[in-house]
Amino acid sequence: MTDAPARLEVESLQENLRAVQDVLRRQHVVESLVQRQDMPRHELVEQLVHKQHLAELKTRLEPLHPADLAYILEALPQEERLQVWALVRAGREGEILLEVSDAVRETLIATMDPKELVAAAGALEADEIADLAPDLPENVIEDVIRALPQEEREQLRAAMSYEEGTVGALMDFEQITVREDVTLEVVTRYLRRLDELPGHTDQLFVVDREQKLRGTLPLARLIVTDLESEVLAAMVPEGVKLHPEDPAEDAAQAFERYDLVSAPVVDHFGRLVGRLTVDAVVDHIREKSAETQLAEGGLAKEEDIFATAWASFRNRWSWLAVNLVTAFVASRVISLFEGSIGQLVALAALMPIVAGIGGNSGNQTITMIVRALALGQIQATYWPKLVAKELGVATLNGVIWGGILGIATWMLYDNVALGGVMALAMLLTLLLGAGMGVLIPYLRARFERDPAVGSSVLVTACTDSGGFFIFLGLATLFLL
Amino acid sequence: MTDAPARLEVESLQENLRAVQDVLRRQHVVESLVQRQDMPRHELVEQLVHKQHLAELKTRLEPLHPADLAYILEALPQEERLQVWALVRAGREGEILLEVSDAVRETLIATMDPKELVAAAGALEADEIADLAPDLPENVIEDVIRALPQEEREQLRAAMSYEEGTVGALMDFEQITVREDVTLEVVTRYLRRLDELPGHTDQLFVVDREQKLRGTLPLARLIVTDLESEVLAAMVPEGVKLHPEDPAEDAAQAFERYDLVSAPVVDHFGRLVGRLTVDAVVDHIREKSAETQLAEGGLAKEEDIFATAWASFRNRWSWLAVNLVTAFVASRVISLFEGSIGQLVALAALMPIVAGIGGNSGNQTITMIVRALALGQIQATYWPKLVAKELGVATLNGVIWGGILGIATWMLYDNVALGGVMALAMLLTLLLGAGMGVLIPYLRARFERDPAVGSSVLVTACTDSGGFFIFLGLATLFLL
Repeated sequence: MTDAPARLEVESLQENLRAVQDVLRRQHVVESLVQRQDMPRHELVEQLVHKQHLAELKTRLEPLHPADLAYILEALPQEERLQVWALVRAGREGEILLEVSDAVRETLIATMDPKELVAAAGALEADEIADLAPDLPENVIEDVIRALPQEEREQLRAAMSYEEGTVGALMDFEQITVREDVTLEVVTRYLRRLDELPGHTDQLFVVDREQKLRGTLPLARLIVTDLESEVLAAMVPEGVKLHPEDPAEDAAQAFERYDLVSAPVVDHFGRLVGRLTVDAVVDHIREKSAETQLAEGGLAKEEDIFATAWASFRNRWSWLAVNLVTAFVASRVISLFEGSIGQLVALAALMPIVAGIGGNSGNQTITMIVRALALGQIQATYWPKLVAKELGVATLNGVIWGGILGIATWMLYDNVALGGVMALAMLLTLLLGAGMGVLIPYLRARFERDPAVGSSVLVTACTDSGGFFIFLGLATLFLL
Repeated sequence: MTDAPARLEVESLQENLRAVQDVLRRQHVVESLVQRQDMPRHELVEQLVHKQHLAELKTRLEPLHPADLAYILEALPQEERLQVWALVRAGREGEILLEVSDAVRETLIATMDPKELVAAAGALEADEIADLAPDLPENVIEDVIRALPQEEREQLRAAMSYEEGTVGALMDFEQITVREDVTLEVVTRYLRRLDELPGHTDQLFVVDREQKLRGTLPLARLIVTDLESEVLAAMVPEGVKLHPEDPAEDAAQAFERYDLVSAPVVDHFGRLVGRLTVDAVVDHIREKSAETQLAEGGLAKEEDIFATAWASFRNRWSWLAVNLVTAFVASRVISLFEGSIGQLVALAALMPIVAGIGGNSGNQTITMIVRALALGQIQATYWPKLVAKELGVATLNGVIWGGILGIATWMLYDNVALGGVMALAMLLTLLLGAGMGVLIPYLRARFERDPAVGSSVLVTACTDSGGFFIFLGLATLFLL
């Protein structure tokens, strides 16, 4: 947060990485040469070369922005990663730990002893320590808290008390406050004495004696307004105010809607307790979007690409287990109809098509509804309208695709009745998918669960077992 | 862009919507009463009530931020949406069209005649007109261009010339430039004359006579530095610079890494051509994340929740068609083994489990790799490492889940050999899924296609057909 933007263009990111890899590779070549030739008298040379490489690496790493160092660490395999990590000068470790992904952070923290961790965390702002805290050992956190000055200690306690996913967990405490009865001249003189303004200071916060927020004074206004005016005359009296318990997602929507750079966070008495800045919001949005993407792909959390197979297995097993259970249930449904399949083997080949299309179409419905719910676009009164529309789409799909596949089945197996069963089963399974696609998120929203989590697995489970049951049931009724 | 942040707290968003719905509902009640009782003499009363409702709505809508009006329009069914749209005062229509989703924008533009559209677009900045242009009729764009002053006309042409997804398509032209040889006193006086600074002006851009970028002057520095200093002494000489052809995603990563509020955009000669601001970046990130989410759910683009069934069908058919084709291929693979299934019907019940787990695990691999590729974390030299790791995870999964399901099969069907085939087929299908999960994004990245698009469909197609083939093939070999 306190760093000036890095002095580089976008493309140079990969160049830095390649340069670091290059030094590491050269060092590696020397090491393996020495090893292969088994020449102890070369030890001195090797040490010299090694030292030279280390010095070169250090010079390369020194000027980089913490985010760029984080990128390099994430893109290196474990061994090289730790070589680079060892070279990062103390005092920057905290900033870098904040920037790397959770999975990589764990691997780095594992190499540090408690004293190093306390030093790394101690160099950070209170809100940043709070972000790091879940990954630190208990005793390290205690030591860090003990070493903080009173004010920051309270800030850290406050920041740690808010749940993940709330405004409180994202806010910082670097807001600059002024009183409404002073002139802009006084404000300007006060700012000059600060030497440097905290990052993302696009506005000052105007508070009264009780720290109650009275308004905000945008820097842009401060600059264009006559210095003799009072703050009261220049300030914006009302604006977006956030509460620490607000969901971070709501705050993100407010930042997006109103194009904010920073916003005040106030408690229930209207007292200013912190501020939220757009960089924290961007990080939040990115993280959420990554989480959604990973969850949809069946990963519990972000994976270190160089993790061991065992660590990856642990990150992925739960999703596979859930899917195996639903596949097992579907398999038992099929086995109910083993008699029918024995009589007409074509059923076995056709049944995955029916189940598949029901799952795909149910997932389309659920994707649209979960998104609309997240954006707050669905009002209670409109659910019947939505159900009607989704059943309409399913009917259209059923008539069109069911018709096509029905005819294809008829031609392939030269069996009109089988084609008819195929078409009817597809229509009914599509209706089932659409119905579940609305019902599942509706019920979850109704009972105040997150409608996104696991909805897709649930709808697929319904359409798989349901699709097999409908198709094989109809076949048993009409064909055998 | 030119609007001050809305004067409201986050919660009031839904309140506004409910208030609008309430007025609409009351109006609707009056209408249906009059209709039902068929009383022509009440016409006058009805008109009066209607007028009163319209006035009430107008008063409600007037003070709202364009983004809030967009929210209300998106959350209303077609008929009510157009009632509200008709009340929005001319001159704000352009801003609102910018804020609504593509699908809803189409429904709104469809109700406007060319003259209204020219007026709506004409009220916007050049970069904003360019955003709207793809949805406007050709002749409207021509009229808008003709009505613009020379400078803006060129800006619009420039903005429209950049492809979607580039920095050029996101940038605006509201940068304030200063020369390096003037004092901060002069700069301040110049800014005062502007009355108001453009949104997201956190820094001024320092250029020479040829418009070449020399550095930037953060407002925060301008405020804390002695006014007698020259710009040259106070400015930041180097920093992040973007090019109009840069992918927007790279710019978004730079904003995220370096916590930027704005960044200069320069051409190949180093001349300043525009600036990119964090609000445009946030919009871009949100849009991309929505696109990914929609594509993964099988929707071609954002859907108006109140769209007709037919419009929804068109948004969804292509995905269903692709899946039907792959399901059909899988079905043909199964039909190769109809003889085997006829002899051992249990195969029909077990085969979806094998194909399913291969698809799930292949998708896990592909999700992780596509993400790492997007973040630039995978260097060419590490592909063999990745393949080895993924095959390792697949082997672990195969041994564990294959073992469990093998034993379950053995017990259910009292057939050791069938259990063995089940276990082996699961292991091989998992290896196939992992292999394809690495190979597909590798090849697509190699041939410079977006590795994300359709990868999941491809891997599922492979594991479905492959899983059926492996399981039924092994069963035919060993059991019959």
